[in-house]
Amino acid sequence: MKPSLVLMLNCLRRGAESRAAGRHFSSLVLLHQHRRRPLPCSPGGTHPRSSSSSSSSGGGSALVFRQHGAPSQVVELESFQLPSVGAEDVRVQMLAAPINPADINMVQGTYAILPDLPAVGGNEGVAQVVEVGPQVTSLKPGDWVIPRDTGLGTWRTAAVVTERSLIQLPSDIPLLSAATLSVNPCTALRMLSDFQTLQAGDTVIQNAANSGVGQAVIQIAAARGFTTINVVRDRPEFNQLSDRLKALGASHVITEEALRQPHMQELFKTCPKPKLALNGVGGKSATELLRHIQHGGTMVTYGGMSKHPVVVPVGALIFKDVKVRGFWVTRWKANHAHDGKAFTDMLDELCTMIRQGKLTAPVCNQVELGDYRRALEAAMEPYTSAKQVLVF
Amino acid sequence: MKPSLVLMLNCLRRGAESRAAGRHFSSLVLLHQHRRRPLPCSPGGTHPRSSSSSSSSGGGSALVFRQHGAPSQVVELESFQLPSVGAEDVRVQMLAAPINPADINMVQGTYAILPDLPAVGGNEGVAQVVEVGPQVTSLKPGDWVIPRDTGLGTWRTAAVVTERSLIQLPSDIPLLSAATLSVNPCTALRMLSDFQTLQAGDTVIQNAANSGVGQAVIQIAAARGFTTINVVRDRPEFNQLSDRLKALGASHVITEEALRQPHMQELFKTCPKPKLALNGVGGKSATELLRHIQHGGTMVTYGGMSKHPVVVPVGALIFKDVKVRGFWVTRWKANHAHDGKAFTDMLDELCTMIRQGKLTAPVCNQVELGDYRRALEAAMEPYTSAKQVLVF
Repeated sequence: MKPSLVLMLNCLRRGAESRAAGRHFSSLVLLHQHRRRPLPCSPGGTHPRSSSSSSSSGGGSALVFRQHGAPSQVVELESFQLPSVGAEDVRVQMLAAPINPADINMVQGTYAILPDLPAVGGNEGVAQVVEVGPQVTSLKPGDWVIPRDTGLGTWRTAAVVTERSLIQLPSDIPLLSAATLSVNPCTALRMLSDFQTLQAGDTVIQNAANSGVGQAVIQIAAARGFTTINVVRDRPEFNQLSDRLKALGASHVITEEALRQPHMQELFKTCPKPKLALNGVGGKSATELLRHIQHGGTMVTYGGMSKHPVVVPVGALIFKDVKVRGFWVTRWKANHAHDGKAFTDMLDELCTMIRQGKLTAPVCNQVELGDYRRALEAAMEPYTSAKQVLVF
Repeated sequence: MKPSLVLMLNCLRRGAESRAAGRHFSSLVLLHQHRRRPLPCSPGGTHPRSSSSSSSSGGGSALVFRQHGAPSQVVELESFQLPSVGAEDVRVQMLAAPINPADINMVQGTYAILPDLPAVGGNEGVAQVVEVGPQVTSLKPGDWVIPRDTGLGTWRTAAVVTERSLIQLPSDIPLLSAATLSVNPCTALRMLSDFQTLQAGDTVIQNAANSGVGQAVIQIAAARGFTTINVVRDRPEFNQLSDRLKALGASHVITEEALRQPHMQELFKTCPKPKLALNGVGGKSATELLRHIQHGGTMVTYGGMSKHPVVVPVGALIFKDVKVRGFWVTRWKANHAHDGKAFTDMLDELCTMIRQGKLTAPVCNQVELGDYRRALEAAMEPYTSAKQVLVF
């Protein structure tokens, strides 16, 4: 095993311990005109451990990138030795970890915050506790856990991390729901909760409706009785996609092109104009959402898949009192780090919905770790309707 | 006198009585991509009075536009008979009324809300009470008053309006301060108060710093101990303008070009990054303001002089948590119509600042009514540093 990788993995462990608030990642975000912040973890960290420690907790393998670039070219499967389990540490084996758009951007080097290299990819996933240190009180072997924070490097078979870097999840929900719970459904729930006071019958409009966030928005909004107008790019399989999103609870599914047509006014005879618009695209798509929002409404941007900025007509701000905001689940978690209950309450609410059948995982392709190149390529294909999830 | 004009003036009176919340105007605003709302007043109103009423309160003259177009071409000075003073009515003589950018846009037909034509121009100004009806309790002859609402048509020598359409102003402040108080200083005060919790030492950045709003922002911010970064377009007389704005209390005066230069970073070694940005321009200028705003800061747009939309990088919304808002003093007044105290408290605060010498009227050119064409043309000149104010 390469020493630098061992150093890195040790450093990842320490990075997860010391990582300050605000150094998380989110999904669906491409960065432009924003200074990137480095993550603290690098092989040159201040407290590397030797890989020859006699107290190693065994080995594993991980998807590592040593430089930024095209994910299928720069990511490699490498093996490593785990460090020993300290008094406050927890050894976990990963069960499943998705490939999110933010993970891709991080490998490409285009994300807002980046790890020092080399680094293990992945920021989300569910793991099972295998071993705990003597001072660990909240977790025991067999528990399901997810990273409390971003940057853990979840594309790997095993890890040793501190107790506080994990958060327990009930193990009676489906594996794929657990693996994809902490980014997209949390983003969707917060955006539907924190920006406008919505009541049953209110309307929410969103683009990127087929994204992981979009599918969670559809389901949480349906559970709350909101009407949703779901905008997707036109595509050959539009009808199937529309049927699938409606089966999730979507009230209306329309294409970007239809959104620009005058007959949208017909739709608004059947429901109120949206109080809330959720924007994962930017550019013209975002401007179109703004055009339909009601007076005093809010547009929340959580992604910029079009790589174009949000263009806001002056009149929408002044005369319609439209509020243009952003949401980053990473920041939300950082802002609520002092109040762990806020996060666990949110997870409890989501898990309850999952048990009730009101919130399902997005369509996933489960991929063995060895097939990672195919998975990375698939994750970058346009119009993809399935999330790639590594299973271990 | 033309009958249609008499009808219109009667209708203006009734319009001022019945005008619903939200039908006010603001300054510095050009409308694009926003549906215009008509004002209720038109010669075809439902309760026109005859001009031959024996109870006329005398005559006057007004600047009237019968069609939208270039102000100096479509605005005409016309004479009229006033209606009689009803039980709840007040007859006033106008003392001074400014020509604001919103007034120009209204004549051009490009503003968000427009009166039916013909209409009297002007939405701001100070008048003196001449006669009150028997049921009027809050006003007496000699009082200074300003319109409570927008759409009064202040470019005229006299008017008969309802008591509730007026709000009293102390008569111990300078005439030009009174005539220009209810739009720009109110806009400035609210934007500095309602969007971010600012403390002495905090920084506010604004473009259009030489506008009426801009000058009020400088003075109110200085009174509160805020550092202001004031952006103006480059011009031959930049140094004189800079000196004048600094005499008002501006901390820094820079050109749009300088705002884009790397040495702006030097400036931010002397003061915190802005929590609040005030945008009266839009386009690139607004984007530049956003670039300098601090994490979690707010940009408030109150005008779009560049006629370009506000372009917001996705990263600013997501990673910097920048809030993009709009402000329209007309909406503020409408939202607080049920609470007259909010408006009078604001006027009291501004009048106190005026008496203390902390808030002065913008540089004004006082123009006789007969010279209105010259005043309208002057009001539209670029880089104008003086507000045109009609005096009666």
